[in-house]
Amino acid sequence: MKHWWRTGATLVVGAGLGASLTRLLGAGGRQEDQRSLGLLSAVPVLPAPGPLGLVGVPTLQASEMTVSAGGSGAVMKYGFPSMANIKTRESYVTSYDPRTRTASWVIERLSPASLTGSSDRKFSEFKEDDSVHMFHRATNGDYRGSGFDRGHLAAAANHKWSQKAMDDTFYLSNVAPQNPHLNQNTWNNLEKLCRSLTKRYLNVYVCTGPLYLPRQEADGKLYVRYQVIGKNHVAVPTHFFKVLILEQAEGRGVELRSYVLPNQPVDDKVPLENFLVPIETIERASGLLFVPNIMRRTSNLSAITNK
Amino acid sequence: MKHWWRTGATLVVGAGLGASLTRLLGAGGRQEDQRSLGLLSAVPVLPAPGPLGLVGVPTLQASEMTVSAGGSGAVMKYGFPSMANIKTRESYVTSYDPRTRTASWVIERLSPASLTGSSDRKFSEFKEDDSVHMFHRATNGDYRGSGFDRGHLAAAANHKWSQKAMDDTFYLSNVAPQNPHLNQNTWNNLEKLCRSLTKRYLNVYVCTGPLYLPRQEADGKLYVRYQVIGKNHVAVPTHFFKVLILEQAEGRGVELRSYVLPNQPVDDKVPLENFLVPIETIERASGLLFVPNIMRRTSNLSAITNK
Repeated sequence: MKHWWRTGATLVVGAGLGASLTRLLGAGGRQEDQRSLGLLSAVPVLPAPGPLGLVGVPTLQASEMTVSAGGSGAVMKYGFPSMANIKTRESYVTSYDPRTRTASWVIERLSPASLTGSSDRKFSEFKEDDSVHMFHRATNGDYRGSGFDRGHLAAAANHKWSQKAMDDTFYLSNVAPQNPHLNQNTWNNLEKLCRSLTKRYLNVYVCTGPLYLPRQEADGKLYVRYQVIGKNHVAVPTHFFKVLILEQAEGRGVELRSYVLPNQPVDDKVPLENFLVPIETIERASGLLFVPNIMRRTSNLSAITNK
Repeated sequence: MKHWWRTGATLVVGAGLGASLTRLLGAGGRQEDQRSLGLLSAVPVLPAPGPLGLVGVPTLQASEMTVSAGGSGAVMKYGFPSMANIKTRESYVTSYDPRTRTASWVIERLSPASLTGSSDRKFSEFKEDDSVHMFHRATNGDYRGSGFDRGHLAAAANHKWSQKAMDDTFYLSNVAPQNPHLNQNTWNNLEKLCRSLTKRYLNVYVCTGPLYLPRQEADGKLYVRYQVIGKNHVAVPTHFFKVLILEQAEGRGVELRSYVLPNQPVDDKVPLENFLVPIETIERASGLLFVPNIMRRTSNLSAITNK
């Protein structure tokens, strides 16, 4: 088994991690609530600053951004994990990384309504994102013969509500080189899980992106190593993350599930919950932040971990 | 010799490249002027759109940004190569990359005045940049025992005009892990060259940053591979770039010199001009853009290449 590393602690992908999130908030972190939700057995609840704690903190909130109307309301009530190169599309908001030629993250908002409609991917085609400078843009030619799928970050099937919304998921800026077996099996199962959660939650926000994780090589040192494909050198992520921000009805707060999957074949008999990781793992490795934004919107955040 | 690759063409570091910049602007590119400037033998001059060409183009110009007063005037008259995570300091403007824990670029403006003063680096200490979230911040501990120098991007000796300006160059967000031999020899010589050019040019703008260039491995595929150091996984660039934007007196236009050096020992008898590369090389590899911004400020841009 390969050992992948994250900052500050070991990330063993596919193994139960079960870490609590309490240390994420430093000394103030403590467990306040513990509920059993089927397979979601451990739910450490993080304390949050009250409204007074936010006085004087200048932050750009989602409600202040102009975002596509999408289904209904802002795509990302819970803020953006970074403010770099943000684009809004019919079905998602994204931050583009011109160096890797793919997104840093893509956020969508799923609901029963967004999953319903007559849109069909047979009418959609993968296309260059011509809002990106040609030096920094992936093309279909880059993927051809590479051995990698054009893996959607925001999934096409999440946006049946509008053909335009579905078409927009086919911009290559919403795509990253993905192992075909992963794309067509376990990753597909994770996308289906996201859709199924719309039955249990008021709103399902999904943030997806690439990771480039270091690992230890024979000399004992840590290296990040990833392939680049095509003449535009599109980066092949070592891993992908999905962060699910699950809004409960009746003000019962927000649940967080964060997954990391390796960009390689994964036995689809391995339960998805085995890929749950503490959100801090993703925040450190990606250079993004999720929790501080979410905490501005709720005082009741539960992190779903594996154990 | 190792072969390093860039998008669209081969970059052989340290060898004369001599490519003209004309293709950078597509079919419209042509040589209009050719002057000899000592060792700067080939000076393809790029045509630029006149003021009319800019009508209706919404761009954020340097003059619209709030930047530190620095010596006198805006640090970056010629725009910013990206708009992500920009910070202004006494001596430079920078864009921080929270994933690599170092800057994407740092821009300074050098002049005889900025090089003069009683500031001394013995009063300066390397320090964490506490404006960066602790998950994404380099510390002195990360460098300790790593075998890498804390290599300044904006050089300390460029800012003798103010102790605060010099101190600000010691933020670890203005630093990247650098091979000690390179730092203390050829890189130091390049920094000295930048300072010496203040005698010949009205203004010298210097933009410095890390590169993570792919290379071909034994399987024939291209991979980006770089070490990360310390518990915060600070990325060790494979290369560094310096882009010099040299403003001539009396409206005689702007000269551009762009260098790429490998992050490894370099024989300091190799002339610095051997490390000149076409600006497009840096623009493609870094995800940044320089030329479009510069062209908004001058219609007379000369690119200095090796041959």
